[in-house]
Amino acid sequence: MAEKNLSITLLLDFYGEILTRKQREVMELYYNDDLSLAEIAAQADITRQGVRDCIKRGEATLSEMEEKLRLAAGFQQKRKTLDGIRAAADEIDRINSRFCSSEKISKLAEKIKIDADSLYD
Amino acid sequence: MAEKNLSITLLLDFYGEILTRKQREVMELYYNDDLSLAEIAAQADITRQGVRDCIKRGEATLSEMEEKLRLAAGFQQKRKTLDGIRAAADEIDRINSRFCSSEKISKLAEKIKIDADSLYD
Repeated sequence: MAEKNLSITLLLDFYGEILTRKQREVMELYYNDDLSLAEIAAQADITRQGVRDCIKRGEATLSEMEEKLRLAAGFQQKRKTLDGIRAAADEIDRINSRFCSSEKISKLAEKIKIDADSLYD
Repeated sequence: MAEKNLSITLLLDFYGEILTRKQREVMELYYNDDLSLAEIAAQADITRQGVRDCIKRGEATLSEMEEKLRLAAGFQQKRKTLDGIRAAADEIDRINSRFCSSEKISKLAEKIKIDADSLYD
Protein backbone atom coordinates (compact mmCIF):
# COMPACT_ATOMS: atom_id res chain seq x y z
CA MET A 1 0.00 0.00 0.00
CA ALA A 2 1.37 3.43 -0.86
CA GLU A 3 2.36 5.67 2.03
CA LYS A 4 -0.32 8.11 3.01
CA ASN A 5 0.91 11.06 1.08
CA LEU A 6 -0.20 14.20 -0.68
CA SER A 7 0.05 12.66 -4.08
CA ILE A 8 -2.64 10.00 -3.55
CA THR A 9 -4.82 12.62 -1.87
CA LEU A 10 -4.41 14.79 -4.95
CA LEU A 11 -5.21 11.91 -7.30
CA LEU A 12 -8.30 11.19 -5.21
CA ASP A 13 -9.40 14.79 -5.72
CA PHE A 14 -8.92 14.53 -9.46
CA TYR A 15 -10.12 11.04 -10.24
CA GLY A 16 -12.13 9.96 -7.20
CA GLU A 17 -15.39 9.95 -9.13
CA ILE A 18 -14.07 7.21 -11.37
CA LEU A 19 -13.94 4.78 -8.42
CA THR A 20 -16.91 2.76 -7.21
CA ARG A 21 -18.83 4.47 -4.45
CA LYS A 22 -17.61 1.97 -1.86
CA GLN A 23 -13.99 2.35 -2.95
CA ARG A 24 -14.21 6.11 -2.85
CA GLU A 25 -15.75 6.11 0.63
CA VAL A 26 -13.06 3.82 2.00
CA MET A 27 -10.27 5.79 0.37
CA GLU A 28 -11.62 9.10 1.61
CA LEU A 29 -11.79 7.74 5.15
CA TYR A 30 -8.20 6.57 4.85
CA TYR A 31 -6.62 9.48 2.97
CA ASN A 32 -8.75 12.48 3.84
CA ASP A 33 -10.03 11.62 7.31
CA ASP A 34 -6.87 9.73 8.32
CA LEU A 35 -8.71 6.77 9.88
CA SER A 36 -6.84 3.51 10.52
CA LEU A 37 -7.63 0.32 8.62
CA ALA A 38 -9.28 -1.09 11.76
CA GLU A 39 -11.45 1.99 12.22
CA ILE A 40 -12.54 1.89 8.59
CA ALA A 41 -13.25 -1.85 8.84
CA ALA A 42 -15.56 -1.23 11.81
CA GLN A 43 -17.29 1.68 10.12
CA ALA A 44 -17.77 0.04 6.71
CA ASP A 45 -18.56 -3.38 8.21
CA ILE A 46 -15.91 -5.25 6.23
CA THR A 47 -12.72 -7.02 7.34
CA ARG A 48 -9.46 -5.19 7.86
CA GLN A 49 -8.03 -7.17 4.94
CA GLY A 50 -11.03 -6.14 2.84
CA VAL A 51 -10.26 -2.51 3.57
CA ARG A 52 -6.63 -3.03 2.63
CA ASP A 53 -7.55 -4.69 -0.67
CA CYS A 54 -10.07 -1.99 -1.46
CA ILE A 55 -7.46 0.74 -0.91
CA LYS A 56 -4.84 -1.08 -2.98
CA ARG A 57 -7.23 -1.52 -5.88
CA GLY A 58 -8.31 2.11 -5.62
CA GLU A 59 -4.70 3.30 -5.60
CA ALA A 60 -3.96 1.21 -8.68
CA THR A 61 -6.95 2.71 -10.51
CA LEU A 62 -6.01 6.27 -9.56
CA SER A 63 -2.37 5.76 -10.54
CA GLU A 64 -3.39 4.26 -13.87
CA MET A 65 -5.61 7.26 -14.57
CA GLU A 66 -2.77 9.65 -13.75
CA GLU A 67 -0.33 7.67 -15.86
CA LYS A 68 -2.68 8.08 -18.82
CA LEU A 69 -3.98 11.59 -18.31
CA ARG A 70 -1.19 13.37 -16.35
CA LEU A 71 -3.67 15.93 -15.04
CA ALA A 72 -2.51 15.99 -11.43
CA ALA A 73 1.16 16.44 -12.38
CA GLY A 74 0.26 19.38 -14.61
CA PHE A 75 -1.81 20.83 -11.78
CA GLN A 76 1.13 20.90 -9.38
CA GLN A 77 3.24 22.76 -11.94
CA LYS A 78 0.37 25.21 -12.41
CA ARG A 79 0.25 25.91 -8.69
CA LYS A 80 3.88 26.98 -8.79
CA THR A 81 3.16 29.34 -11.66
CA LEU A 82 0.22 30.78 -9.72
CA ASP A 83 2.56 31.35 -6.75
CA GLY A 84 4.72 33.36 -9.18
CA ILE A 85 1.79 35.44 -10.42
CA ARG A 86 0.72 36.16 -6.85
CA ALA A 87 4.24 37.18 -5.83
CA ALA A 88 4.57 39.50 -8.85
CA ALA A 89 1.25 41.16 -8.04
CA ASP A 90 2.40 41.64 -4.44
CA GLU A 91 5.63 43.21 -5.62
CA ILE A 92 3.77 45.55 -8.00
CA ASP A 93 1.58 46.63 -5.10
CA ARG A 94 4.63 47.25 -2.92
CA ILE A 95 6.52 49.29 -5.53
CA ASN A 96 3.38 51.20 -6.42
CA SER A 97 2.73 52.11 -2.79
CA ARG A 98 6.25 53.44 -2.36
CA PHE A 99 6.87 55.21 -5.65
CA CYS A 100 3.65 55.75 -7.62
CA SER A 101 0.61 55.68 -5.33
CA SER A 102 -1.75 54.86 -8.17
CA GLU A 103 -5.04 53.68 -6.72
CA LYS A 104 -5.89 51.97 -10.00
CA ILE A 105 -2.68 49.94 -10.04
CA SER A 106 -3.27 48.92 -6.43
CA LYS A 107 -6.79 47.72 -7.26
CA LEU A 108 -5.64 45.86 -10.36
CA ALA A 109 -2.87 44.11 -8.42
CA GLU A 110 -5.46 43.10 -5.82
CA LYS A 111 -7.74 41.76 -8.57
CA ILE A 112 -4.90 39.67 -9.98
CA LYS A 113 -4.28 38.15 -6.57
CA ILE A 114 -7.96 37.30 -6.06
CA ASP A 115 -8.18 35.80 -9.55
CA ALA A 116 -5.00 33.78 -8.99
CA ASP A 117 -6.35 32.49 -5.65
CA SER A 118 -9.49 31.25 -7.37
CA LEU A 119 -7.36 29.14 -9.70
CA TYR A 120 -5.65 27.09 -6.98
CA ASP A 121 -8.53 24.62 -6.68
CA MET B 1 -23.04 11.62 -33.59
CA ALA B 2 -22.37 14.94 -31.87
CA GLU B 3 -21.71 17.93 -34.09
CA LYS B 4 -18.07 18.60 -34.63
CA ASN B 5 -17.57 21.17 -31.98
CA LEU B 6 -15.04 22.63 -29.63
CA SER B 7 -16.35 20.75 -26.66
CA ILE B 8 -15.59 17.25 -28.00
CA THR B 9 -12.20 18.51 -29.17
CA LEU B 10 -11.56 19.75 -25.66
CA LEU B 11 -12.67 16.44 -24.11
CA LEU B 12 -10.38 14.64 -26.53
CA ASP B 13 -7.51 16.77 -25.26
CA PHE B 14 -8.31 15.94 -21.67
CA TYR B 15 -9.33 12.31 -21.81
CA GLY B 16 -8.05 11.05 -25.16
CA GLU B 17 -5.50 8.77 -23.53
CA ILE B 18 -8.29 6.78 -21.91
CA LEU B 19 -9.55 5.62 -25.34
CA THR B 20 -8.16 2.63 -27.20
CA ARG B 21 -5.40 3.58 -29.60
CA LYS B 22 -7.62 2.90 -32.62
CA GLN B 23 -10.47 4.97 -31.22
CA ARG B 24 -8.15 7.83 -30.44
CA GLU B 25 -6.63 7.79 -33.91
CA VAL B 26 -10.03 7.81 -35.60
CA MET B 27 -11.35 10.56 -33.34
CA GLU B 28 -8.29 12.73 -33.85
CA LEU B 29 -8.64 12.39 -37.62
CA TYR B 30 -12.27 13.40 -37.35
CA TYR B 31 -12.10 16.14 -34.73
CA ASN B 32 -8.59 17.53 -35.01
CA ASP B 33 -7.76 16.97 -38.68
CA ASP B 34 -11.35 17.47 -39.87
CA LEU B 35 -11.38 14.46 -42.22
CA SER B 36 -14.70 13.06 -43.48
CA LEU B 37 -15.99 9.62 -42.45
CA ALA B 38 -15.17 8.32 -45.96
CA GLU B 39 -11.63 9.68 -45.81
CA ILE B 40 -11.04 8.14 -42.40
CA ALA B 41 -12.54 4.82 -43.57
CA ALA B 42 -10.08 4.72 -46.47
CA GLN B 43 -7.14 5.67 -44.28
CA ALA B 44 -7.92 3.28 -41.39
CA ASP B 45 -9.07 0.48 -43.69
CA ILE B 46 -12.46 0.03 -42.02
CA THR B 47 -15.98 0.68 -43.29
CA ARG B 48 -17.60 4.07 -43.13
CA GLN B 49 -20.12 2.60 -40.67
CA GLY B 50 -17.24 1.24 -38.61
CA VAL B 51 -15.77 4.74 -38.40
CA ARG B 52 -19.12 6.15 -37.36
CA ASP B 53 -19.55 3.53 -34.60
CA CYS B 54 -16.01 4.07 -33.39
CA ILE B 55 -16.58 7.83 -33.08
CA LYS B 56 -19.93 7.37 -31.33
CA ARG B 57 -18.42 5.01 -28.77
CA GLY B 58 -15.48 7.34 -28.26
CA GLU B 59 -17.79 10.31 -27.74
CA ALA B 60 -19.78 8.34 -25.19
CA THR B 61 -16.62 7.42 -23.29
CA LEU B 62 -15.33 11.01 -23.30
CA SER B 63 -18.70 12.40 -22.20
CA GLU B 64 -18.95 9.85 -19.41
CA MET B 65 -15.48 10.83 -18.18
CA GLU B 66 -16.43 14.50 -18.21
CA GLU B 67 -19.70 13.81 -16.44
CA LYS B 68 -17.77 12.12 -13.65
CA LEU B 69 -14.67 14.31 -13.41
CA ARG B 70 -15.83 17.73 -14.71
CA LEU B 71 -12.26 18.69 -15.55
CA ALA B 72 -12.93 20.24 -18.94
CA ALA B 73 -15.77 22.42 -17.65
CA GLY B 74 -13.55 23.73 -14.86
CA PHE B 75 -10.83 24.39 -17.39
CA GLN B 76 -13.04 26.66 -19.50
CA GLN B 77 -13.93 28.71 -16.44
CA LYS B 78 -10.24 28.94 -15.62
CA ARG B 79 -9.47 30.29 -19.07
CA LYS B 80 -11.88 33.15 -18.47
CA THR B 81 -10.15 33.96 -15.19
CA LEU B 82 -6.79 33.90 -16.97
CA ASP B 83 -8.18 36.36 -19.55
CA GLY B 84 -9.02 38.61 -16.59
CA ILE B 85 -5.51 38.33 -15.11
CA ARG B 86 -3.96 39.10 -18.50
CA ALA B 87 -6.22 42.12 -19.00
CA ALA B 88 -5.42 43.47 -15.53
CA ALA B 89 -1.66 43.12 -16.17
CA ASP B 90 -2.10 44.96 -19.49
CA GLU B 91 -3.95 47.75 -17.74
CA ILE B 92 -1.27 48.02 -15.04
CA ASP B 93 1.34 48.30 -17.78
CA ARG B 94 -0.65 51.02 -19.54
CA ILE B 95 -1.26 53.10 -16.40
CA ASN B 96 2.34 52.65 -15.32
CA SER B 97 3.63 53.86 -18.71
CA ARG B 98 1.50 56.98 -18.54
CA PHE B 99 1.77 57.97 -14.91
CA CYS B 100 4.59 56.13 -13.12
CA SER B 101 7.21 54.90 -15.59
CA SER B 102 8.49 52.27 -13.16
CA GLU B 103 10.63 49.83 -15.07
CA LYS B 104 10.15 47.23 -12.33
CA ILE B 105 6.36 47.43 -12.52
CA SER B 106 6.54 47.09 -16.29
CA LYS B 107 8.70 43.97 -16.02
CA LEU B 108 6.48 42.43 -13.35
CA ALA B 109 3.35 43.05 -15.43
CA GLU B 110 5.09 41.37 -18.37
CA LYS B 111 6.03 38.40 -16.17
CA ILE B 112 2.41 38.02 -15.07
CA LYS B 113 1.28 37.93 -18.70
CA ILE B 114 3.88 35.30 -19.64
CA ASP B 115 2.97 33.19 -16.59
CA ALA B 116 -0.75 33.51 -17.37
CA ASP B 117 -0.12 32.48 -21.00
CA SER B 118 1.65 29.34 -19.83
CA LEU B 119 -1.47 28.33 -17.89
CA TYR B 120 -3.83 28.28 -20.89
CA ASP B 121 -2.81 24.78 -21.95
